Amino acid sequence: MEGGKLFAERLSRRVFIKGAAGTVGIAALTAGGLGVFSKAEAKGGGTEKWPWPYEKLDPEKTAEIAYAEWYRVFCGAAVINSVFSQLSEKVGEPYTSFPSDAFVFLEGGMVGWGTICGSNAGANIVANTIIGPRIAGPECENGAAIGADILQWYSEAALPTFTPKEPRQKAKIMQTTSNSPLCHVSVGKWMKASGYAISSPERRDRCARVAASVAYNLVKDLNAWKDGTYKAKSSWKPASNMGITAQQNCTECHGANIPTPPAKKI
Amino acid sequence: MEGGKLFAERLSRRVFIKGAAGTVGIAALTAGGLGVFSKAEAKGGGTEKWPWPYEKLDPEKTAEIAYAEWYRVFCGAAVINSVFSQLSEKVGEPYTSFPSDAFVFLEGGMVGWGTICGSNAGANIVANTIIGPRIAGPECENGAAIGADILQWYSEAALPTFTPKEPRQKAKIMQTTSNSPLCHVSVGKWMKASGYAISSPERRDRCARVAASVAYNLVKDLNAWKDGTYKAKSSWKPASNMGITAQQNCTECHGANIPTPPAKKI
Repeated sequence: MEGGKLFAERLSRRVFIKGAAGTVGIAALTAGGLGVFSKAEAKGGGTEKWPWPYEKLDPEKTAEIAYAEWYRVFCGAAVINSVFSQLSEKVGEPYTSFPSDAFVFLEGGMVGWGTICGSNAGANIVANTIIGPRIAGPECENGAAIGADILQWYSEAALPTFTPKEPRQKAKIMQTTSNSPLCHVSVGKWMKASGYAISSPERRDRCARVAASVAYNLVKDLNAWKDGTYKAKSSWKPASNMGITAQQNCTECHGANIPTPPAKKI
Repeated sequence: MEGGKLFAERLSRRVFIKGAAGTVGIAALTAGGLGVFSKAEAKGGGTEKWPWPYEKLDPEKTAEIAYAEWYRVFCGAAVINSVFSQLSEKVGEPYTSFPSDAFVFLEGGMVGWGTICGSNAGANIVANTIIGPRIAGPECENGAAIGADILQWYSEAALPTFTPKEPRQKAKIMQTTSNSPLCHVSVGKWMKASGYAISSPERRDRCARVAASVAYNLVKDLNAWKDGTYKAKSSWKPASNMGITAQQNCTECHGANIPTPPAKKI
């Protein structure tokens, strides 16, 4: 088992661990005297058997749902609901049992702290819940790969890329590039460029359109994965290449003085 | 409905919107011509009826499970599984149907990008899935409040606070304070202070102990909430007080030159 290796480290080495933990689950803990039973055994592997059944969705329709849902449940849950509401209708379980609305807390970069943009977090949740975690076998690595692609695309795109058919705000919503997947940086750069305050209707509509933009791109990737044509686009492997988990915009926080992480002792 | 208000803004105003969206769900979208049905109707409100049944857990045992699980599913899923595996046994559904292992991607601050520490994300997922999102009524606001408390406690504590009974690494694991809920900052400061590399067994054990420390504190708060004695500890309201979603360590990225966000037009 690849204990302690980060996704980015693993991708670079391509070590396959097919089925290592998928069926054993946390039953292994019982041997350690903790008396925990296996969830996988208890439920017959239902929701933790990957991939979940997926049917291709219309990116445009998905984006419109995300846009509308933002005004009810905000960025993270809007992205999740834009996909899972449709799959609940087309497929049913296990989508209907996923508590999407619980993810309202992703708003504002997690309860307003400005960390990961909720749309990015929501997209990663969707991709990894459908395709599965990398520990479930190499075929499930596309979940994390699509998630990483979303982070990279989000950082590099002039957002929002999607304009709803009937926008709530008629004012022009300008596009800005964040160079970061963080809410604080993404929203901050947009606010600085546009002059709109955090509580303005325009800022809110901008974030609703960003959620819609992310949902659109997420479904494009999921559809390609379903078709067997998906290829990972992100090549960012910070742990193995930089020696630390990191974004790509080092100098925005560190200036020219980027600390050197401790090297591995050989 | 409180469309577009951030959690931190709302907390400061204490506007109650009891039951606003809980039962309507996304059925409202149907009126908009998108043809989406209501998940809540489809499943009878099962997993999106809050709070989920909770039974008090032993913080020490929970932390030991999180520590062991880190070596299988890493920080985020380890924290989720440390709570949900026990509740799957004590309570059963809806915990048994939650796909905890899908959250392996939270590792390394989300697929290695160093954003929100997976332990913090996992704790927020647990608190909000059990207690519910704030849009489900004022009694559900404690989910986001416990999540915010975890972010603040994590930022201010000398981590890790928990030492497992049988640690995998016998070397002393030093404690560092991150002043941030981000993986990059938390791991980076620990690496700098300790001299250990990202891929070292000591760094891995440090992060396993951090996951255990977060799980310990999460369960203490959940138990207090169950007893009716929980009181929100975090008072961080960045959107309303600072004009932007943000952490509290502004000068670590901005130096002395902190941009002024655009003010609300009156």
